[in-house]
Amino acid sequence: MNAEWFEFLKKDYLQGFPAYCGFSVKHAAFGEFVTHLTVQNIHKQQDGFVHAGVVATMADHTAGYAAYTTVEPAYRILTVEFKINYLRPAGGPLVTCHAKVINTGKRIIVSESEVFSGDDLADDERTPTQPKLVSKAMVTLMVVPASSLNSPRA
Amino acid sequence: MNAEWFEFLKKDYLQGFPAYCGFSVKHAAFGEFVTHLTVQNIHKQQDGFVHAGVVATMADHTAGYAAYTTVEPAYRILTVEFKINYLRPAGGPLVTCHAKVINTGKRIIVSESEVFSGDDLADDERTPTQPKLVSKAMVTLMVVPASSLNSPRA
Amino acid sequence: MNAEWFEFLKKDYLQGFPAYCGFSVKHAAFGEFVTHLTVQNIHKQQDGFVHAGVVATMADHTAGYAAYTTVEPAYRILTVEFKINYLRPAGGPLVTCHAKVINTGKRIIVSESEVFSGDDLADDERTPTQPKLVSKAMVTLMVVPASSLNSPRA
Amino acid sequence: MNAEWFEFLKKDYLQGFPAYCGFSVKHAAFGEFVTHLTVQNIHKQQDGFVHAGVVATMADHTAGYAAYTTVEPAYRILTVEFKINYLRPAGGPLVTCHAKVINTGKRIIVSESEVFSGDDLADDERTPTQPKLVSKAMVTLMVVPASSLNSPRA
Repeated sequence: MNAEWFEFLKKDYLQGFPAYCGFSVKHAAFGEFVTHLTVQNIHKQQDGFVHAGVVATMADHTAGYAAYTTVEPAYRILTVEFKINYLRPAGGPLVTCHAKVINTGKRIIVSESEVFSGDDLADDERTPTQPKLVSKAMVTLMVVPASSLNSPRA
Repeated sequence: MNAEWFEFLKKDYLQGFPAYCGFSVKHAAFGEFVTHLTVQNIHKQQDGFVHAGVVATMADHTAGYAAYTTVEPAYRILTVEFKINYLRPAGGPLVTCHAKVINTGKRIIVSESEVFSGDDLADDERTPTQPKLVSKAMVTLMVVPASSLNSPRA
Repeated sequence: MNAEWFEFLKKDYLQGFPAYCGFSVKHAAFGEFVTHLTVQNIHKQQDGFVHAGVVATMADHTAGYAAYTTVEPAYRILTVEFKINYLRPAGGPLVTCHAKVINTGKRIIVSESEVFSGDDLADDERTPTQPKLVSKAMVTLMVVPASSLNSPRA
Repeated sequence: MNAEWFEFLKKDYLQGFPAYCGFSVKHAAFGEFVTHLTVQNIHKQQDGFVHAGVVATMADHTAGYAAYTTVEPAYRILTVEFKINYLRPAGGPLVTCHAKVINTGKRIIVSESEVFSGDDLADDERTPTQPKLVSKAMVTLMVVPASSLNSPRA
């Protein structure tokens, strides 16, 4: 585990659906991942709040990459299941997700994601000013050998 | 509850993030909602499968609209929480979500979403041929008066 | 998989905590398990309803044994996680749990449990009369070789 | 909110099923509740570990009472749903549950419970020595007027 692997994952995070959603990566370390999103109209639901699906995608993907920081490059991470609570509507304009691994194992890793909504980036560039915790997710992930996946990448 | 309300909801479903994701609506009835998605590269994750966030968004939003079919137009539906299991990777090219309400209440409605992946649309236009159940979600929703939401729409 | 294995599991179900709770087994088949409980004061919470923990224990254990019916005797089943919704308070006097496997895999099995509360046993001895669905759980289980557990039984 | 209310809840915790399980209360404050359990054979599952149902009951009930500390005595707390992850088997002999409220609302409160297993009580009497986090739960609770419950107590 080293800085190079974390740098790789910071770029790897942004492809396919998460890139389409417009997330960006702020921080990666062993067992930790921080991402953020500047809210646009495409992210909203019918009442003008950030859509639960945007928040869930961010929580899941960031939790998965927090897990990814703890395994060797020969492995891949798949989501087994997650559960997410919406504590209050997220209004933006800045949404931040902090994920951390709470338990590692050979095959199963459990991560948590906390999603905050607020006004602006604070100085550390990870947390919005006057952030409010809007969602929390618990995510169960599976570690699989890359060679076991029938995927273009593996 | 009548056909007009269901027709309204079939259109209402597609705005903001769900429209951006490219979902479409196949069926709406009291306590039921069916949607589908033709998978494109923007829906994928790093290993080439449909992203867990796409499936979660579809499961959540379709479950919410299944709940929506059971309330009066003066109310709105917000997601309190959901849990989703990923039973197998979803390859597409067609993904379908069947949501149904399993319990109604004045304030809390619980819906389930089953997500299938398969080859093509079957004759009834709701189910892919050789569909496989790829995900299942249990979604807790809250019924709130539209007037209580500080939103453009309310 | 045969009748003998199911009969073994019907007895095996009732030891330790589940025996202490007073559950009994009504039915076991491949991927299915049905149990019930005659409610007593020891099963209640502070407002006189069946305690959420009793229902959760029943849902988890019955889901686990539904999974157990699908594996070889050299394996054990551990709960990875579960989620349970309480749809309405359970008053008893008879509570029944129907569990079924919704997805099998080499390492991960997902089961669902539906818990009903009602008046009396119906003729098939599995379902209370006028049963109401009071809870539903989705349970993720792991299949492990018995030899990998440091337990008295393994 | 005052010490008297917390003292009342510390006693109120132990009735019906939680009393039958043998839990005891170590600490109560606004938004917090700590309980523990000395493991006996009646708490175990078929492989000799503490049963998932015992841990779930402890996590749910302690989370509920953490929520209870934040409401007026005219209200009651019911569990809407919870999700619990089992991070590693719990061997005891001492199991401790720390619950805290992570979000309050007029009608919905969300609490988290962390369950530890270890050797002995540390000096503060709340945490086992060499404690290991064995489970974590996220619990959604509903605040209801006592007068709305058809229960002996209300």
